[in-house]
Amino acid sequence: MFPDTITYLDYFGTIIFAMSGCLVAARKQSDILAFILLGLVTAVGGGTLRDLLIGRTPVFWLTNEIYILLCIGTAFVMFIGLHHIQRIRHYKSLLLWSDAIGISTFTIIGTHIAMQSGAGVMPSILLGVSTACFGGILRDILSNEVTLIFRNDIYMTACIVGSCTYIALVTMGLSSIAIPLSFLACLTLRGLAIRYKLQLPGHKYFEN
Amino acid sequence: MFPDTITYLDYFGTIIFAMSGCLVAARKQSDILAFILLGLVTAVGGGTLRDLLIGRTPVFWLTNEIYILLCIGTAFVMFIGLHHIQRIRHYKSLLLWSDAIGISTFTIIGTHIAMQSGAGVMPSILLGVSTACFGGILRDILSNEVTLIFRNDIYMTACIVGSCTYIALVTMGLSSIAIPLSFLACLTLRGLAIRYKLQLPGHKYFEN
Amino acid sequence: MFPDTITYLDYFGTIIFAMSGCLVAARKQSDILAFILLGLVTAVGGGTLRDLLIGRTPVFWLTNEIYILLCIGTAFVMFIGLHHIQRIRHYKSLLLWSDAIGISTFTIIGTHIAMQSGAGVMPSILLGVSTACFGGILRDILSNEVTLIFRNDIYMTACIVGSCTYIALVTMGLSSIAIPLSFLACLTLRGLAIRYKLQLPGHKYFEN
Repeated sequence: MFPDTITYLDYFGTIIFAMSGCLVAARKQSDILAFILLGLVTAVGGGTLRDLLIGRTPVFWLTNEIYILLCIGTAFVMFIGLHHIQRIRHYKSLLLWSDAIGISTFTIIGTHIAMQSGAGVMPSILLGVSTACFGGILRDILSNEVTLIFRNDIYMTACIVGSCTYIALVTMGLSSIAIPLSFLACLTLRGLAIRYKLQLPGHKYFEN
Repeated sequence: MFPDTITYLDYFGTIIFAMSGCLVAARKQSDILAFILLGLVTAVGGGTLRDLLIGRTPVFWLTNEIYILLCIGTAFVMFIGLHHIQRIRHYKSLLLWSDAIGISTFTIIGTHIAMQSGAGVMPSILLGVSTACFGGILRDILSNEVTLIFRNDIYMTACIVGSCTYIALVTMGLSSIAIPLSFLACLTLRGLAIRYKLQLPGHKYFEN
Repeated sequence: MFPDTITYLDYFGTIIFAMSGCLVAARKQSDILAFILLGLVTAVGGGTLRDLLIGRTPVFWLTNEIYILLCIGTAFVMFIGLHHIQRIRHYKSLLLWSDAIGISTFTIIGTHIAMQSGAGVMPSILLGVSTACFGGILRDILSNEVTLIFRNDIYMTACIVGSCTYIALVTMGLSSIAIPLSFLACLTLRGLAIRYKLQLPGHKYFEN
């Protein structure tokens, strides 16, 4: 169904999201189990929500154990090696960019699965964005941090653009180039946002 | 199945709940996306939980796009016009009363769908109340505010009364008057609570 | 399928978890509805997540009303009698030990149901642990407290050990002794953790 590239990017994204969950666990000085759990929730949370809403059960990581294994592996590496990993040069921007690749991949996979299940255009976009972003939202809720939703940086926007591009190209019969082009659209926009600290304007006028 | 009135009230409730989600987004000075997302979550969260628990997938807003569209529309209007809207006289009590109409409608719809799916009396009440209240609970969790659950005002109580009335009348074979009467029961109780600031007694005796 | 003992332990666990939810509601001086709701969420949250992920809908407490009734009963007893209950000698360690019995039971039930649904080893462990622990996580999220996940005491670890023991024994064809042995494994480990305040080591090396 998907070219191998997407599958590998999917695994890559899973690892990256698991890492971002583990970072939160580390900040709370948690034990290895919290590393595994937060890694898992962040990495598979979005796809799980998508599968539940569509009714595609058992959810994907119950039928393909590779996702759980990737998360557990990542958690162990992070728990033991985080202080080494942190010494890697440009460690933080490395993470940001990996995350950008992760959400681009997850958005396309989510949108694709939603369309295949027969969902309309709007729901497909929503499910695509959820697949990419809901894991991070769960991570923020569990760790009592300010949710992704309330940060104004261009994050979900990039997912929406990627999802729309994918749907537009597939609808026009250009399936062969839909994946690389929509991937690039999402990654480029998110990349520009990281590079130039772009933000959406927040609401200003509210008086409590 | 439902008379048209209920369908219109359903859309009305969706808009009102979306507005209450947008108000939270506004208070956090969020961007338009957060407006849309919090609006959506608040408006369709309850029905989504109900559909998931019953196994009625794909969930309702995946098969009928009107709900998503209503939420997006509401979000845009709120983002652009909130400072105008706020100038409407009695703006706050208008919202409170609209919300009361919203929960009354959602409670009946939720209870009805639960009964149709073959659920027993207690689960039907619970699903009815969840349909009306879970969206608001999600909104509060996402925005890190004190959950609906812990406020002692008569809110869920009104939903329970409405749901019980509906079930009782339908069981007695009085389906024709079940909807208007249970709607009135819920709305009246909630209305009295708003008007006279009625509260359930909180627990007093606990020593930590 | 399960011996009666397990069924009774299941009801016992439900009551205990409902109590732990009610305690949180009491601390917030909530009304009786919050007692019921938090009791319910804590008691059936884990099993609900398991059922949703597997696609075993309608979820268990929709088809068997006893669970809802147990939670409502517990909530009323707690709301009225908490100050009496608190005077019971060794009240707190009684609760801790009851909770240990609860998670041991829920872990086995969750693992059993997961295996029956055809899930692999890793997913079965994860679903077993979720059944036992997710209710408590939801309770903590709803009440804005530090999640179970971030506490380093040996809690989820005990569930994992119990779940692994059960799977190992069943796989070896020793189904007849799988339940009592895995129950004891989980309970013993959790009991030792309570008695000697055992903790998993937290992550130390992270620089923000």
